[in-house]
Amino acid sequence: MNLPERYAAVRGQSLALAQPLSDEDCGAQSMPDASPVKWHLAHTTWFFETFILERFEADFQPFHPAFRVLFNSYYNGIGDKHPRPQRGLLTRPSMAEVRAYRAGVDARMARLLARPSTELQSLVTLGLQHEQQHQELIVTDVKHLLAQNPMQPAYADTAPLPSDAAGTLEWLPFNGGVAEIGYAGGGFCFDNELPRHRTYLAPYELASRLVTNGEYLAFIEAGGYADPALWLAEGWDRVRSEGWAHPLYWRREADGRWTEFTLHGRRPLDLDAPVMHVSLYEADAYAHWCGARLPTEAEWESAAALPGLRQLFGACWQWTSSSYAPYPGFKPAPGAIGEYNGKFMVNQYVLRGSSSATPEGHARASYRNFFPAHARWQLMGIRLAR
Amino acid sequence: MNLPERYAAVRGQSLALAQPLSDEDCGAQSMPDASPVKWHLAHTTWFFETFILERFEADFQPFHPAFRVLFNSYYNGIGDKHPRPQRGLLTRPSMAEVRAYRAGVDARMARLLARPSTELQSLVTLGLQHEQQHQELIVTDVKHLLAQNPMQPAYADTAPLPSDAAGTLEWLPFNGGVAEIGYAGGGFCFDNELPRHRTYLAPYELASRLVTNGEYLAFIEAGGYADPALWLAEGWDRVRSEGWAHPLYWRREADGRWTEFTLHGRRPLDLDAPVMHVSLYEADAYAHWCGARLPTEAEWESAAALPGLRQLFGACWQWTSSSYAPYPGFKPAPGAIGEYNGKFMVNQYVLRGSSSATPEGHARASYRNFFPAHARWQLMGIRLAR
Amino acid sequence: MNLPERYAAVRGQSLALAQPLSDEDCGAQSMPDASPVKWHLAHTTWFFETFILERFEADFQPFHPAFRVLFNSYYNGIGDKHPRPQRGLLTRPSMAEVRAYRAGVDARMARLLARPSTELQSLVTLGLQHEQQHQELIVTDVKHLLAQNPMQPAYADTAPLPSDAAGTLEWLPFNGGVAEIGYAGGGFCFDNELPRHRTYLAPYELASRLVTNGEYLAFIEAGGYADPALWLAEGWDRVRSEGWAHPLYWRREADGRWTEFTLHGRRPLDLDAPVMHVSLYEADAYAHWCGARLPTEAEWESAAALPGLRQLFGACWQWTSSSYAPYPGFKPAPGAIGEYNGKFMVNQYVLRGSSSATPEGHARASYRNFFPAHARWQLMGIRLAR
Amino acid sequence: MNLPERYAAVRGQSLALAQPLSDEDCGAQSMPDASPVKWHLAHTTWFFETFILERFEADFQPFHPAFRVLFNSYYNGIGDKHPRPQRGLLTRPSMAEVRAYRAGVDARMARLLARPSTELQSLVTLGLQHEQQHQELIVTDVKHLLAQNPMQPAYADTAPLPSDAAGTLEWLPFNGGVAEIGYAGGGFCFDNELPRHRTYLAPYELASRLVTNGEYLAFIEAGGYADPALWLAEGWDRVRSEGWAHPLYWRREADGRWTEFTLHGRRPLDLDAPVMHVSLYEADAYAHWCGARLPTEAEWESAAALPGLRQLFGACWQWTSSSYAPYPGFKPAPGAIGEYNGKFMVNQYVLRGSSSATPEGHARASYRNFFPAHARWQLMGIRLAR
Ligand SMILES: [Fe+3]
Ligand SMILES: [Fe+3]
Ligand SMILES: [Fe+3]
Ligand SMILES: [Fe+3]
Repeated sequence: MNLPERYAAVRGQSLALAQPLSDEDCGAQSMPDASPVKWHLAHTTWFFETFILERFEADFQPFHPAFRVLFNSYYNGIGDKHPRPQRGLLTRPSMAEVRAYRAGVDARMARLLARPSTELQSLVTLGLQHEQQHQELIVTDVKHLLAQNPMQPAYADTAPLPSDAAGTLEWLPFNGGVAEIGYAGGGFCFDNELPRHRTYLAPYELASRLVTNGEYLAFIEAGGYADPALWLAEGWDRVRSEGWAHPLYWRREADGRWTEFTLHGRRPLDLDAPVMHVSLYEADAYAHWCGARLPTEAEWESAAALPGLRQLFGACWQWTSSSYAPYPGFKPAPGAIGEYNGKFMVNQYVLRGSSSATPEGHARASYRNFFPAHARWQLMGIRLAR
Repeated sequence: MNLPERYAAVRGQSLALAQPLSDEDCGAQSMPDASPVKWHLAHTTWFFETFILERFEADFQPFHPAFRVLFNSYYNGIGDKHPRPQRGLLTRPSMAEVRAYRAGVDARMARLLARPSTELQSLVTLGLQHEQQHQELIVTDVKHLLAQNPMQPAYADTAPLPSDAAGTLEWLPFNGGVAEIGYAGGGFCFDNELPRHRTYLAPYELASRLVTNGEYLAFIEAGGYADPALWLAEGWDRVRSEGWAHPLYWRREADGRWTEFTLHGRRPLDLDAPVMHVSLYEADAYAHWCGARLPTEAEWESAAALPGLRQLFGACWQWTSSSYAPYPGFKPAPGAIGEYNGKFMVNQYVLRGSSSATPEGHARASYRNFFPAHARWQLMGIRLAR
Repeated sequence: MNLPERYAAVRGQSLALAQPLSDEDCGAQSMPDASPVKWHLAHTTWFFETFILERFEADFQPFHPAFRVLFNSYYNGIGDKHPRPQRGLLTRPSMAEVRAYRAGVDARMARLLARPSTELQSLVTLGLQHEQQHQELIVTDVKHLLAQNPMQPAYADTAPLPSDAAGTLEWLPFNGGVAEIGYAGGGFCFDNELPRHRTYLAPYELASRLVTNGEYLAFIEAGGYADPALWLAEGWDRVRSEGWAHPLYWRREADGRWTEFTLHGRRPLDLDAPVMHVSLYEADAYAHWCGARLPTEAEWESAAALPGLRQLFGACWQWTSSSYAPYPGFKPAPGAIGEYNGKFMVNQYVLRGSSSATPEGHARASYRNFFPAHARWQLMGIRLAR
Repeated sequence: MNLPERYAAVRGQSLALAQPLSDEDCGAQSMPDASPVKWHLAHTTWFFETFILERFEADFQPFHPAFRVLFNSYYNGIGDKHPRPQRGLLTRPSMAEVRAYRAGVDARMARLLARPSTELQSLVTLGLQHEQQHQELIVTDVKHLLAQNPMQPAYADTAPLPSDAAGTLEWLPFNGGVAEIGYAGGGFCFDNELPRHRTYLAPYELASRLVTNGEYLAFIEAGGYADPALWLAEGWDRVRSEGWAHPLYWRREADGRWTEFTLHGRRPLDLDAPVMHVSLYEADAYAHWCGARLPTEAEWESAAALPGLRQLFGACWQWTSSSYAPYPGFKPAPGAIGEYNGKFMVNQYVLRGSSSATPEGHARASYRNFFPAHARWQLMGIRLAR
């Protein structure tokens, strides 16, 4: 696919994700950490308008002056922002207007893409990668919203097949030593994947596959949520203050059976599927209970280059014990685009791999996803190390 | 109008209020005290379904079992309730489904109304009065929602005319003595307006009209929001913690002129119109600044029976200094309906009169509206006493 | 006693209350609503210094300039105040310095009291009444502080005798009609007891004695804290959010028996003693459960002038259903002294009578004590009306 | 010094720190993160009683059964804990009783120390190191407490001399490569300093000395607290929500000069002294403004083994960019002692060096101090890297 084709494909995919939803579904915000689908659709468009059209169009006029503020996420360099917790109150512009906004920007982008400079190409690529990140958030934010509804509505109607048997968890050994991590190829990567650099690893082992719902259920039934000795102190505080007793969307029904809220509505727990929607605290406590630990991001990335590991990509993101920090020699991009990653490098933890909600072609071994240790609404699970 | 006609008229009016709004507008909740329009439309329908259809239909089947919980406001006697602050997350049922819910209940109500018993008539009348109360809330909640939007959208397009000159404020004297207050006629009233009873009033005076925006602006410009000596202690705490410096929807523009957000969008402040959207604290401080005070509800009701007072009804609700309390001998209705009023009789203050958002025919001199002292989003203003 | 003698007696009584306490006990603040004993001792002294010495001494010099801010409670007219929740952090001045402050001010007051003007006499009387109010707070605040300590230490060592049998609760009828309430005599009263004025009362009945611990226990055992139908809506919210299941200092021990924390440490519940440390919400719910109600303050005061009621004074304060509001024609004193009462007249409820912690000679039938509906740490109990 | 001598010296030093303080000073708690001095004195004693006396005394009897709960800090393995934010409410036991508790435990420890096993020696050493950590907290917590007092009282009376001129900041280069960090010697270290292990470092430079107050003032005057581009996103949120505009104890006086609250009271800002009482956010923003960065803990420790760096120890702790995490192969001690460090390894950042409040002999290059990124009340400053 050439760039204009890729542009069209990625942009179309965002609208496709909204297709099963009503305008009402697209406007609601279930918590400050999540955003309405409509906001995601507008904000990704704002990104192209602000960082590309405004720069490359000779006679740039904003689609709507107010959108500059409404759909800015966090770029202080651009000016004011609408307060994040109030995104669900923006009943205007309507979904129809946001669709028109997308169409208008797409048409103007198409003209620029007819004669792209190198710099433009690189910004468009960034914009598409950005849009793909929001596509994953659309899925996780909608899932969270629908889960709040006592009617437990489904996003998608087709019922998925149960997972195949998970198979034995094997421990794969790795030698360690001085390793190189960080993006190496010639394609796109985010600034936080650079520079590629050396790091030292002691010999280690990784689990061949992810922890399953069935294995995690054993932890619950063994009293894992009731034993402070297994938990980080902060994690234990959360367990108590939030009343955590299982992953985010699980529920023990009146008859004792476990169910999980999914994009297909509430369903019986699939014991062979990877456990998801656990915080770093829960992942760490589970590992502790097993006599294992979580991998560092360097261990994960280093091992991912070698054969043997299953479920690296496409199942769920995998918590690492690595705090999100700049690589040695990290340089953010100049200007407002430089706010993309660097300023979030504190009190967050890195997740590696990708999930079933990650768009096609968006995953790679050097990719650094990151969330606070208490986050649970993403598709986040557990690969063990020791 | 006979009862079936009145039923149709009132129910139709609720839909008419939603007519200028999109489905997105109808789903959002701007704060825990406010509710989405869709919720109001469903909850008023739930009232008829729960308190009338369920009781009088031989073969009653709920329209949808989940609605029993979703659209219960606070009737503990009925069972579970959906948490109030999460009403804005109910993207399902859709507005279309809620319209169908209304139509379905209306059709069944029509059958019952063809042969109404006395008890049924009385419950229907209560249901319609209840619906009218929610009609006023639809207006005030929508106003609050739209005011949060930086684009300051209008609910209604037609621009209103500026007010006529307010005219001189005159003081009308009343004799006091043993007076009777409470509902006296043979028509409908809420249980909190009964029993009619004696009370003793010292001689007093009431202002002939409401305090205007222009008069209130003078209070602001004289430093009213900066002088603790004028304020109740709790009010002064609010002024400081919330940064209050003017009524809720006022704004001082960059050029120094004052504007007010209205249902017609943001407009220049109308100096002759009654000041609105002030808390009891602000009303009390303003009165203090004038050397006056707020009336008691008994003074207001007693005076309203005599000639001379203007703007009693149809402009805005008027704060009284009376705490909302049961009248001597007050008896709530039996059963869940009895939760309508009595259990809210603490830490609220009575407002009298009615507002421009009060439905036709809903106002009367004995009517007791009530809100917490800090509430500002209703159409609430000031009549002075001394 | 002449005024200098009364001055000495009241001032000495404050120190006597602190006598069983260590300096450490006197410095701690158990919650924002309570104050350290040391603060009470200093603040009551500040009152004399600020409102009397500063006004009547020709060559007034403050004892310590910083005390003007540190020990101001809420008089905005006097200037800055130390934030209330941080009173427990004032380890300096020490108790020894506060004792010196008291002695210094007392010596200077003695000189003024040798030749008192009428105005001085009236201010001194107010200062002593103020000090007596704080004496009751010293007791209740110390009780609250010691109750937080897992060791449950006693303030006083002598063990009290159990109460006599409470005797039958009788209903005493009163005629109602136009009554006069408010202070009538020629002695001291607070501004909020004036002016004496007429009010109209429907015929009513009051309980001859207070509700006992045993009676309240029956309410608990009948599930009173689990039935929302008994509660004001706000009260029910508190029951749930705070987990209320009994009066503040009660505890159900492992063996099922009930105990109560008292100034003599934790002791078995005295079933014949009046129930205390209940909020207005609990008092109202209990009354509701009995098919009774709480009296209004006018009913209480009117009946107190007639024979028959027991436990009016000296047991515990008695919640009324009356919101704390100005009497018709109320005029606060001019200047900062005028902040004493009026500005608190919102969202509080009146209690009548007096408690075992009320200083000798401080009680009278027209006295209006007031606290928010959720307050429980004062000696507050229940007299029923119907 | 032999072990009994060291025991006596360290234990005596804790009391010496309390010597300038009144019992009232020792009882107050200025915020949940800080503890009363009395609590520190009792808790360090509890540590010896619980982990040594209870284990090694044949006929162990607790000094007071309640102290087991009152003075447990966070060891879930030991049982219940008194809630941290309520430590300031423990007016009993008194300081005199806590002194008696210390004396009683010390006497019993002396008997055990007469015939110490290897295991006992190692636990006593841990207990003394633990006590030294609390000695530093005594100083910082007292400083915070006194700073809340508007009278700004001094802990120590002797006025310190102003600092010598700071001298030029030089950049010292280090080669990097595979380095070893972690404790290496044969003496005591905490479990979090082990195991010594290899790590890879890119070549780097460190500043020869700490950032001074004068340098930091230039950052302030250049608008550092007003430019979001310099800050981590979380840091910028703090700047806005807490109104940060300078280090914790600084104040700009009415005449424009800067002062700082110190243990000697409020004093003019010493421009040549190292800046202290800044959060990681402020340290990072300052470094960003300089075009520099904070060192990693491995860089710091590695460089500390080489000549050239000044102010490594004894001035103030130095923020690193390293999240507090277990070293590869980390093993906590078995039992409750194992709760000492490991469970805090999330959302905290490592500080290296030591401060003027660190007890003699407690510092070493491998020492890992740690606090949340927003903490400011410790003696924490800035060494730059690049
Ligand atoms: Fe984005
Ligand atoms: Fe309703
Ligand atoms: Fe006072
Ligand atoms: Fe400790």
